Formats: sequence, structure tokens, C-alpha cells
Amino acid sequence: MAYVNIQYETMKKFSNHVFSKFGFTDEQSKIITDVLLMSDMYGIESHGVQRMVLYYKTIKNGRIHMDSHWEIVYETPISAVIDNHFGVGQLVGHFAMKKAIEKAKSSGIGLISVRNSNHYGIAGYYAKLACDQGLIGISTTNSEAIMVPTYGRMAMLGSNPIAVAMPAEPYDFFFDASTTVVTRGKVEVYNKKGEPLPLGWALNSDGLDSSDAPDILHNINNKNGGGILPLGGSTEKYGGHKGYGNGMIAEIFASILSQGLTSNHTHIGSTGGTCHSFIAINPNIFGNPDDIKAHLSNFLEELRQSPKASGQTRIYTHGEKEMESYEKRLKEGIPVNENTIREMRDICDEFGIDMEAFLGKIEF
Amino acid sequence: MAYVNIQYETMKKFSNHVFSKFGFTDEQSKIITDVLLMSDMYGIESHGVQRMVLYYKTIKNGRIHMDSHWEIVYETPISAVIDNHFGVGQLVGHFAMKKAIEKAKSSGIGLISVRNSNHYGIAGYYAKLACDQGLIGISTTNSEAIMVPTYGRMAMLGSNPIAVAMPAEPYDFFFDASTTVVTRGKVEVYNKKGEPLPLGWALNSDGLDSSDAPDILHNINNKNGGGILPLGGSTEKYGGHKGYGNGMIAEIFASILSQGLTSNHTHIGSTGGTCHSFIAINPNIFGNPDDIKAHLSNFLEELRQSPKASGQTRIYTHGEKEMESYEKRLKEGIPVNENTIREMRDICDEFGIDMEAFLGKIEF
Repeated sequence: MAYVNIQYETMKKFSNHVFSKFGFTDEQSKIITDVLLMSDMYGIESHGVQRMVLYYKTIKNGRIHMDSHWEIVYETPISAVIDNHFGVGQLVGHFAMKKAIEKAKSSGIGLISVRNSNHYGIAGYYAKLACDQGLIGISTTNSEAIMVPTYGRMAMLGSNPIAVAMPAEPYDFFFDASTTVVTRGKVEVYNKKGEPLPLGWALNSDGLDSSDAPDILHNINNKNGGGILPLGGSTEKYGGHKGYGNGMIAEIFASILSQGLTSNHTHIGSTGGTCHSFIAINPNIFGNPDDIKAHLSNFLEELRQSPKASGQTRIYTHGEKEMESYEKRLKEGIPVNENTIREMRDICDEFGIDMEAFLGKIEF
Repeated sequence: MAYVNIQYETMKKFSNHVFSKFGFTDEQSKIITDVLLMSDMYGIESHGVQRMVLYYKTIKNGRIHMDSHWEIVYETPISAVIDNHFGVGQLVGHFAMKKAIEKAKSSGIGLISVRNSNHYGIAGYYAKLACDQGLIGISTTNSEAIMVPTYGRMAMLGSNPIAVAMPAEPYDFFFDASTTVVTRGKVEVYNKKGEPLPLGWALNSDGLDSSDAPDILHNINNKNGGGILPLGGSTEKYGGHKGYGNGMIAEIFASILSQGLTSNHTHIGSTGGTCHSFIAINPNIFGNPDDIKAHLSNFLEELRQSPKASGQTRIYTHGEKEMESYEKRLKEGIPVNENTIREMRDICDEFGIDMEAFLGKIEF
């Protein structure tokens, strides 16, 4: 697939403009753009600007209620539950983590659980918001059911990522991973290439190992059974029950504590209903934050410097790849694929936006 | 291997007596016994009374300091850091989770990080203490380095379990799992049977996949390199970097926030130094605890009732197997293997304990 590189600032102005044309305020457009572009800058194309058209479709088909306002339905000095009334995930996510950060600064910790929301982009964005304030940031979300529990054949949990970020030098610890063995995005990549999936990633509608990407995706979309495996695979031999348990942890903080929809009830018909959680912890409730940061930084350095496997040259700590990608893309621009460019062009045509004035002339 | 079944109450009296002979008070002996027997009752033989001899050896070789007293080195209304001064893990663990529970009852949450400790048994014991009080309980620990980070060849993290328990009907949610693909105990079982390990569990000293259980165990014990893989295996293809990240989460709450020894620095020479974390969360900071419990119970039931994979008859939710094992062992007794019986007999000989008076006549 052909790619064109677009500079970060250029893409930011364009994306802000497009989201404002969808009907969002300038402030709202900036937040949504910030979440999407962080994903692109970190090298996670699947959750970046290529989702612009998806968000537009989700607004048009009624899953995202543009005119709804979130409501704090329960609050204590260290916690809150927010009902997003089916509004945009990024906006309530940004608000909720800012609230968790405030609580962590005043009371040591903030735990927020959100219900009735929609896709909120990468979980790591919110964890990093807290980390940038010197706090430990944690975020989890549920999502459309794609994970089949151990010995099942129906997807009951989402990709259910858990993200944790914590200040360190020279790179923050930044861990953002689905609790499935792979995300649906990876299966879609194999599907587009026409390649068979590695066995151990997915199950067919009978709950048996399958390498058939088109069949898996068709079944997930139509809720025919089958889906993607938890981290650890299809049986207990390689710990599939552990990935399933990790998915449950994400679910508990997002949908159980908020009393929202569990993954198996989200994204049915015109209802989204995704649930999220946001936790900010002030390290000063455990000691001197600088000492704690130095202790983590030292361990991360020990990990990076530890002996490499035969044939390997480098051990990464979580967050390094993302920071290196960020620096590279800041210089070279964000690679955007031709399909995404075409989808953006269609949106621009519909809203009367002069795409070339923003992005320059693009051949495809 | 031959087994004899010993009734729970019988084993409890015997274990209490043995630990009091080691020099613990009655109260201390009861706590240590309670932790070990919960593991046996839950069907986790590796962490149960078979460790009695290990604890005795660890006291004799000086890793466990019998005469030390823990010290609260930092405290806030929602948190504390405790230095265990190389005392017993179970005792500080019980104390720390009780403190976390108190804080959760008065302030909504309690987070305790403990340094300079020793093995504390199963992480789930502490999570369950909070759960039994109607709270969400979480516990993590680091341990002797056995987990090789992705693309490394030296064990740098421990088995680093994460345990989460939360009230539900008819079974509490109870998830207690190492962040490695398997525990060292599983590798020891294959070693005893003389069977090759499944590929994807462990690495040799070059950091390459290995099925050689004796070599793996020898290398771990002598810190020659190699070790057990994170959940997800040796590469990023099946998500090994995710298991490695989960291990980091356990490490952050245990050894980083307490500023204790990270796994790679524990269990060297006569120093233990294990670190733990204990978190109790009061669900009443999110809403009505009964409603939240009902919501979780309903989701767990939906999981159990969801369609089974071809050839499977049952989907478990986390905690079911443990509760069923508990009920079975309460009726039938705890199966104890012949090696453990012989080790117990040696201990009884050394301390002048009449084992037969406690356990009856055992043939082997």
C-alpha cells in the first residue's frame, strides 16, 4: 500500500478543521485530534487519523450522540462515576483523567469509572496525561466483544486494554496493551494482505483454532461466534486463562464499577456504550517522588543493559519504541496510507473542505 | 507419587504446632498456617504445606530473620510503606492487608507497598482477605528473578503474580496468576516426571527456546542465564512483551513504590528481600456495593452460560475452580504427597514432635 508522509503540525490543523466541520467546538476538535495524533506519532496507525472516517460514520449512524452531555452520577474526594450518555469517548476520557489528576493532586489518588461512552482511542493517551503531571496513570476500557473466554466459542469480552504510565528517565514507562493476544487491527492487516493468521490468534465459530482471517472478521461483525483469543491462547497450557483474567480486570474497573454495559452488551445496533476507567496515583503517598522516579529509571536501565538473547541486539523497556517513533515522525512526518487519504478526500468533498490547501497535492 | 489425604482441621493443628516449634507465637503460627492451607484447599499444592520445609530452611540459612520487626516508614490516610526488615512474608502480608482494609473502610482505599520481605505464599490469600470484607482486594509481589524480558537471556523479573478478588455470587471473582507463562513449580513437575517442557515455556542460557527442564532449573538456581518466559512467549508475535509489561506492573507496586529490591536483586546469597503490594478498594466509592456485586455476578453468570467450544462442556469464571477444590478438600481432606510427608517427618524428628499423634499412622 502506498503512503504519503504528512507533517505533524499540518495534520493537526487539518484534523482540527475536519472535526470542527463535524460540529465539534474548537476545543473539542483539538482534544479528539490530540488523541488520534498521539497514536500516529507513537506508531500505532490503527488508532490514529485513519479512524477519522470511522468516527464520522459513528456520528452519522447515531452511536455517538453529538448533542449529549456527560453527567457525574457519583462522586467522592477520591472517585467518581460518570455517565457519558453515549457521547464521544475522547472528550469524556480527557475530562475524566483531568478529574482523576486533580483528585490525585489534592487527595493522593483519583479513580474514575465511566459508562455509556464510545471508543476513546488508545488507552495510553489517558495514562500519559497523568504521567506528564508526575503521577502514575492507569486507564482501561472495554469494547465491542472480540475476546472468547477460555473454552468458549462466543466473544464475551473486548480487546480490553490496560495502560499504565509512570515517570522515568530518559523515557517514561509507558505500557498500553490489549489483553487479547492481538488486536482486531492485526487480523485486519492479515486480511488485507490475504495471508493466513498464525494459529493461536483466533477461533472459528465452533471455538476451534483458525487461520482464516476473513471468516474470523465476518463472524465477529455478525456475532456468529468465534473471535480473538486472550493473551496466552486457547487453552490453559500457555496461560489463556490468565489473559482472560486480565481482560476481566479491565472490565471490572470500566463496566462493573460504573454499572455500565459489559463488552458483550456494547456495540449492538445503534448503541455503543463502551465503558472506561481512569486512575491517577500521586507517588508522594509512598515517599519522595524524585527518589521513586530514580529507582524506576535505574531498573529500566538495568533491563535495557541486561544480556541479550542469541541473535538479538536490544531489549526494549515499555515506552521506548513509542518515544523513538514520536521523534522520528516529528522529523519525517506521519505516514498516511492511500486508503485513508481517499477516505479523507470523500469527507472533504462532503463538507466542502479544500484538502489540498491543508495537505498539499497528493497523487493518490 | 503416592498421596495421603489429611483432614483440614488435622493439618491445621499440626502445622500450627510445627511453626510454634520453629519459634513463632501461636498467633503468628496461625497466620502462616492459614496462608499455606488456603493454597492447599484451593488446589495449589506447590504453595501449600509442602513449603513447610522450605520455610524452615530459609529460617536456618538466615534469609528469614525470625527476630526482626516490621516498621512503617511512610504513611498517609490512604497509603503506607512498610519495611519488613527481612522478616516472614506471610506475617507482614497479613498485617499490611489488614491495614489496607482499615484504610479502605475509613478512607475508601488503602495502598500498601512492602520492602525487604520474603516469600509470602499465594498472592490471592491477601486479595481474598479484603474480598471477605466486601472490598476489592489486589496484591502483587516480586520474587527471585525467573522471567526473561523479551529478547533477553537473563532472568530479570520474578514470577510476579497479580491477584484480584471481588465479591460476587455464588462465587467471588478470584484471579491469582503469575505474569510468566508458567510458574517454576510447573517446570519442577516436568523435571520430576522426566518429561520435556512444551516449547514456549522457557529459554536456555543463550536465550533460545528450550524444553530441557533440568537445564532450565539449574540455570535459574545458578543465575547462568535463561529462565521462564513472560505470558505470551518469547517474541512479540504472541504478545510476550505484554506478559513482560504485566510483570512490570507487579514490580512497580511492590518494589518500585516501596523503593525496595527489584526481582533481579532479591534472593542473592543470604538476602531475600522480596517486595509486595496490597490494595483494598471500597466499592462504596463508586455506588451501592450490593448493586455493583449484583452487576458483577450477572456478568460472571453470562460468561459461564455462554456457548462452549466444540468438545468443551464448561467455561469457568476465575475463582470457581478454587471454590470447588475447597469444598472437595473440606470433605475428603488435603492430598499430601509422600515427599512432603517424609520432609515433615524429618522436621518432627528434629523438634521432637510426635507426628503420628497429630496425623495418624502414614505408611510412607
